[in-house]
Amino acid sequence: MNDEMNMSRRIRKSPYNSRVLEAGVRGFTVSNHMFFPKAYQPSTEEAYWHLREFVQVWDVSVQRQVRIQGVDATALVQWMTPRNIGSAKIGDCLYIPIIDQNAGILNDPVLLKISDNEYWLSIADSDLLLYVLGLSLGRGLDVLIDEPDISPLAIQGPKAENVLAHIFGEKIREISFFKFGWFEFLGKKQLIARSGFSRQGGFEVYLDGGEYGIALWDRIMEVGKKYNITPGSPNFIERIEGGLLSYGNEMTRQNNPLEVGFRKYCTLDGTIDFIGLEALQKIDRDGVTREMRGVLFGESRAPLCSDPWPITVAGKTVGQITSGIWSPRLKKNVGLSLIERGSWDIGQKIYVNTLDGQSLEGILVNLPMN
Amino acid sequence: MNDEMNMSRRIRKSPYNSRVLEAGVRGFTVSNHMFFPKAYQPSTEEAYWHLREFVQVWDVSVQRQVRIQGVDATALVQWMTPRNIGSAKIGDCLYIPIIDQNAGILNDPVLLKISDNEYWLSIADSDLLLYVLGLSLGRGLDVLIDEPDISPLAIQGPKAENVLAHIFGEKIREISFFKFGWFEFLGKKQLIARSGFSRQGGFEVYLDGGEYGIALWDRIMEVGKKYNITPGSPNFIERIEGGLLSYGNEMTRQNNPLEVGFRKYCTLDGTIDFIGLEALQKIDRDGVTREMRGVLFGESRAPLCSDPWPITVAGKTVGQITSGIWSPRLKKNVGLSLIERGSWDIGQKIYVNTLDGQSLEGILVNLPMN
Repeated sequence: MNDEMNMSRRIRKSPYNSRVLEAGVRGFTVSNHMFFPKAYQPSTEEAYWHLREFVQVWDVSVQRQVRIQGVDATALVQWMTPRNIGSAKIGDCLYIPIIDQNAGILNDPVLLKISDNEYWLSIADSDLLLYVLGLSLGRGLDVLIDEPDISPLAIQGPKAENVLAHIFGEKIREISFFKFGWFEFLGKKQLIARSGFSRQGGFEVYLDGGEYGIALWDRIMEVGKKYNITPGSPNFIERIEGGLLSYGNEMTRQNNPLEVGFRKYCTLDGTIDFIGLEALQKIDRDGVTREMRGVLFGESRAPLCSDPWPITVAGKTVGQITSGIWSPRLKKNVGLSLIERGSWDIGQKIYVNTLDGQSLEGILVNLPMN
Repeated sequence: MNDEMNMSRRIRKSPYNSRVLEAGVRGFTVSNHMFFPKAYQPSTEEAYWHLREFVQVWDVSVQRQVRIQGVDATALVQWMTPRNIGSAKIGDCLYIPIIDQNAGILNDPVLLKISDNEYWLSIADSDLLLYVLGLSLGRGLDVLIDEPDISPLAIQGPKAENVLAHIFGEKIREISFFKFGWFEFLGKKQLIARSGFSRQGGFEVYLDGGEYGIALWDRIMEVGKKYNITPGSPNFIERIEGGLLSYGNEMTRQNNPLEVGFRKYCTLDGTIDFIGLEALQKIDRDGVTREMRGVLFGESRAPLCSDPWPITVAGKTVGQITSGIWSPRLKKNVGLSLIERGSWDIGQKIYVNTLDGQSLEGILVNLPMN
């Protein structure tokens, strides 16, 4: 956060900001009009190994909540997503792609069902609140839509459960994956879910009330000491190996849920109605023309992938790497790419063509990568 | 743009990016999911004096366009703003606050009337496209909504007209303030408006087609040499003196158009209908409780204003400075603030209380500051 950025309040700071700075954050990016701590010392590779063995605390306040309350809340949420939310129970988290009338992805939030008339959408980087507000005003729905003062803090890694059990009690161990419960902190009920943007297990505390931020951070760091806790952030290597897509990176509004691997979240038989149903049915009938794949390539560290790298088969471009990085575990570079039909079989040999003229041999693999 | 930021394509780069980097940009912020060059050498103060005398070229590609086309386009635009657009002519630019049902400001774009069935909204930092899309889908309107590949480049300062006349011909001089015309560049028609985020005069080229970006930048820099052109960015000192509000800074969704000085853009007599009309009428009947003012304070350079500074009158907080900086011309610090009723008279003596404990004497002044 240099001085120029600091002069502006347009980009908001998280309630954990002072601790993040003290912890030696190496830089910020911006998401949802908010600073997002990117990485700390040591390197991304060291952080990767650490995350797989220990526990990290991540400031993911940028995952803002779009809260929808009212008698029309369920209908509104269902209207926005191809995923059937009809059987969702209170306490469930559901990953729900939000799509437009052409089936283009507008956001990919986690839905939290708080009550029969209240939902939170924990969003990726786009102003989903404005879309929800527009739909609601346009259709004249009876709902309240707002962004509450909730700032998620992720505790990720195999030791996360032990850390949180110390603070919130053994009950935390009973929360199943993608479920949440309510736990007290300094006398206030807080929502804690078993979730997070890694494949190493962990929780997210949906901290209600920025004024508790420093206390929560400090308590977690204090208890976490004996588990070798460090501050961290979503790990680029780990998330690519895990096949966790980032909205704005591997998928944008130019993509539909079928091609990026979200078929399991799409109910296309007409039992539910939603914006984009017809478009999605047509895409399904015609067959998708590309699909998301893992890519393993090169025998040594590739340069930084700052602009997309074409992927070729027999000289023909069949995809592009938009996120690629060296995996110290797999001893290859790992990437994610949409690959065109005809070339998308697992095991297909491909070339990744870096912008500095290298042509690196690789193969397509399943996600997540093992 | 450090390596960490560079790894992500979530934050988009402008078509002028390589030239911006070569010109020695000092840093970027992020707006509308895009890198926004903040400043170049020399200092903000030197850039301020330069802008008042010469000409600068600013990469303002972050001013994305929300294009609305179709038979319902006019009705949709009117529904979103308290400003009467009924008498707008093709070729007009109109500053139109967009408000929600409670009269909270969602964005403050410039509207460009392209034809009777086509408008562009040149937006500030929020995903207005999603709001417009939501309204349209919710109400079932017959419109096409998209973000075209248009990347505005601002040419600002008293010599801007001479530079553009060299490139686009003498006709450019005939464009009035907040009007636009069409001019050819490399065989393609481009929209050029007399507008921009400064009070020093100038134009914005709404470049259609990123592939022309480098050529346009280079041509302007080449012709501009004899007018002492430099790369630049919206100048913090100049815009505060000029009373140009920045969405997300001096105004947010917590503000209504009446209190921030946009009464002249609000038609409240019921001759037009729009979202938020009733809320705005009520605010008007009750009377606003605060108003935007200029603030001149301190006899020497204040520290960096990274968090809001309370403004007090007789020990009572009546406002806060969210954007404050030293003006080398006025020999005072200049700021913008909403000030509570009872203390908002021009000439009112106030104190600005910096976070490091200083209490700086100041007064309220009209905007723009002379």
